Amino acid sequence: MNIVELIIKKRNGLPLTKEEIFFFTNSFTNGKISDYQFSALLMAICIKGMNKKETSYLTEAMLYSGIVVNLDRIKGPKIDKHSTGGVGDKTSLIIAPIVASAGVNVPMISGRGLGHTGGTLDKLDSIPGFRTNLNLKEYKEILRKCGTVLIGQTKEIAPADKLFYQLRDVTGTVESFPLITGSIMSKKLAEGIDGLVLDVKTGSGAFMRKTSDALSLANLLISTAKSFDKQVIAFITDMNQPLGNNVGNWLEVEESINVLKGKADGDLLKLSLSLAGAMIYMGGKSKSISSGIKIAQEKISNGDAFNKFVEVVSLQGGNPKFILNPEKYRKPRFVKRVRASRGGFIKAIDNYTIGMASLELGAGRKSLKDKIDPKAGIIFKRKIGDKVKKSETIAELHSDSKTKIDIASEMILNSISYSNKKVAVPRLIKKVIT
Amino acid sequence: MNIVELIIKKRNGLPLTKEEIFFFTNSFTNGKISDYQFSALLMAICIKGMNKKETSYLTEAMLYSGIVVNLDRIKGPKIDKHSTGGVGDKTSLIIAPIVASAGVNVPMISGRGLGHTGGTLDKLDSIPGFRTNLNLKEYKEILRKCGTVLIGQTKEIAPADKLFYQLRDVTGTVESFPLITGSIMSKKLAEGIDGLVLDVKTGSGAFMRKTSDALSLANLLISTAKSFDKQVIAFITDMNQPLGNNVGNWLEVEESINVLKGKADGDLLKLSLSLAGAMIYMGGKSKSISSGIKIAQEKISNGDAFNKFVEVVSLQGGNPKFILNPEKYRKPRFVKRVRASRGGFIKAIDNYTIGMASLELGAGRKSLKDKIDPKAGIIFKRKIGDKVKKSETIAELHSDSKTKIDIASEMILNSISYSNKKVAVPRLIKKVIT
Repeated sequence: MNIVELIIKKRNGLPLTKEEIFFFTNSFTNGKISDYQFSALLMAICIKGMNKKETSYLTEAMLYSGIVVNLDRIKGPKIDKHSTGGVGDKTSLIIAPIVASAGVNVPMISGRGLGHTGGTLDKLDSIPGFRTNLNLKEYKEILRKCGTVLIGQTKEIAPADKLFYQLRDVTGTVESFPLITGSIMSKKLAEGIDGLVLDVKTGSGAFMRKTSDALSLANLLISTAKSFDKQVIAFITDMNQPLGNNVGNWLEVEESINVLKGKADGDLLKLSLSLAGAMIYMGGKSKSISSGIKIAQEKISNGDAFNKFVEVVSLQGGNPKFILNPEKYRKPRFVKRVRASRGGFIKAIDNYTIGMASLELGAGRKSLKDKIDPKAGIIFKRKIGDKVKKSETIAELHSDSKTKIDIASEMILNSISYSNKKVAVPRLIKKVIT
Repeated sequence: MNIVELIIKKRNGLPLTKEEIFFFTNSFTNGKISDYQFSALLMAICIKGMNKKETSYLTEAMLYSGIVVNLDRIKGPKIDKHSTGGVGDKTSLIIAPIVASAGVNVPMISGRGLGHTGGTLDKLDSIPGFRTNLNLKEYKEILRKCGTVLIGQTKEIAPADKLFYQLRDVTGTVESFPLITGSIMSKKLAEGIDGLVLDVKTGSGAFMRKTSDALSLANLLISTAKSFDKQVIAFITDMNQPLGNNVGNWLEVEESINVLKGKADGDLLKLSLSLAGAMIYMGGKSKSISSGIKIAQEKISNGDAFNKFVEVVSLQGGNPKFILNPEKYRKPRFVKRVRASRGGFIKAIDNYTIGMASLELGAGRKSLKDKIDPKAGIIFKRKIGDKVKKSETIAELHSDSKTKIDIASEMILNSISYSNKKVAVPRLIKKVIT
């Protein structure tokens, strides 16, 4: 097979065969195709697209570039959740213990923050002692013991994805639904799951700003999952403002603890319950998503979910002291309040800027060499639709750097717009596709 | 300026600014952009295109990656011709001496064979002693002395083009009108010309098989030339069969000598006179193309054109003996006749296959390391529209290899189709755009 002919075929908008897709995936992963040829192909895929079949073959080729974890010896259903990423999205930390305590295994391989969004691994790393870099033997062992496990990608899992992504990142070929689908699904399928609940984010803090784009991606993810005979449910959810109130790694763990302790309300609780409910239903432990949600609520109110969280943290080496008494965590050197520049209703928040402000504070990486400050971040006191008085506190910023806190404060101030009239809160769950 | 943002801009189909186009051209030429980023950009340009302004900026950037030869000290107009390439297209060898003998300077920087097509440099190299690798000082000197000069690209001329082309060739990004235009025009403008006659080929032996594509490219070449205040006339001409009868380097020189001596007729003479007529008109030596053609005819019949050819060959180190007595040239070891497989009218010739058969015989390179045999090639005895009897000779193959001659013979046999009814000859000059 000739790579140039294959590039030209895709450039001309023709679909590639299974053999051709496996050829380029394997050849590139094994270093037999040059970067410059592969980036030309990636750009052609980016612009000309891939149909559902091609996307499924791509996922398969990327999946089998590594190993598929065999979880057959672990009893019961294995269900995971994947979010396309956003600001303040800490649902994984809440869902995993809820669903596991309801008898559904949740084997979760997560990623780090990407661009302006946070990553589950960075959040878990803020728990003193917590180890996300388990090997696959430890992964299986902890999953078997407590019904959930939360780790980062190992080198055995979809190595093609890592190589693809490194090149996509520097060649303007990130925004491609088939390439995004291959990347997500190859990693998730490698976990050894039976089903997957997808949370496809849309809005100013999401990678898909338009709901129509989120829907297109969701449909491609669904068709791909189904082509592997996996159960799948996709939620299209709002990311026009941070999910919950806290943005930043430890701050998000703390907020998750509050939710698991039944001390929280609002959008974060609602979405966590819905996703957990869908996973419990998918795992066969309820007859519908709504009765799954009821089970999830019970698991919070009876303490099972929180206990499960303490259990998994302990099993993965984390110090449960901080989960049981979050107030013992180290405090930032500076806390600054962002105050409303005028009175009125909060009309919109540029959530991308919130994500970038959080990075600025030290909660994420602006470049690969940056070190994350686990304490850094933002606590929102007001959100879209809230009525505020001039100078009232809208958010609280946490950082060890005075300069950073001033820059972030300015960014946040500029990201908020007001209205004199009452404002409708963005609909949290825009669509559920089963 | 950030190359990734620029790639994304073009990927999204937006036009690039002059600054952006100069930035990527210069950065890549100076090794400051990686091959894999540049190939992604090339693919985005290939698919999303460039408008006339962008194409003109690209040409300018590529042109000024090297030097523009200053021919101000050489009196009189400087006009060149460029052909997009075909099979048996030896008009450069005929036109240069005709037009120079009519008082118009013809500074000609040519290329080698590309794919299935022949190249003027390879043809000139078949003349014993002829030097195409002159430096720019020699180039000017010979042009000043005899009114024409025929050389290959020097390293000072549009270095960006060479680097671009190497990458395009292996990344499926050759077929792009703006990239083709930048490549052609940057080199031609660097010659120091006042005007350019374009011969855009269309048909089975051309890079543009469809006339509509040839027209699109011609229009982009014209608008680009005009944006540099250059005179330009484009001919759209037929390449559905070899031009003239001979294909192969020395065989084409020999046929050119026959035309210059007034001993030839047919499509090659007609096209040579038309292109020469347009150049003479463009150089201000006639009031119209048609009166330019009359002058060109005179220059053949009075011997001036042939004498000019002998002069330029001698000045460039070639042995005039072989121009004056072509029959003294070395003969191939084998000559094989291709005979009509049936009687009837020749309906079509797959001219791409003819080009490939000529390569097979040794007249061109199938890979970079191949050595060209100057004697190798094909002499056509019959062309489209001719009536033939079964077993009548259609073509004569010349090669030093028996194996090659057998393979080529088979290819040619398969490339010819017949009809029982009379067949119309393809129109040679399909359009002239001024």
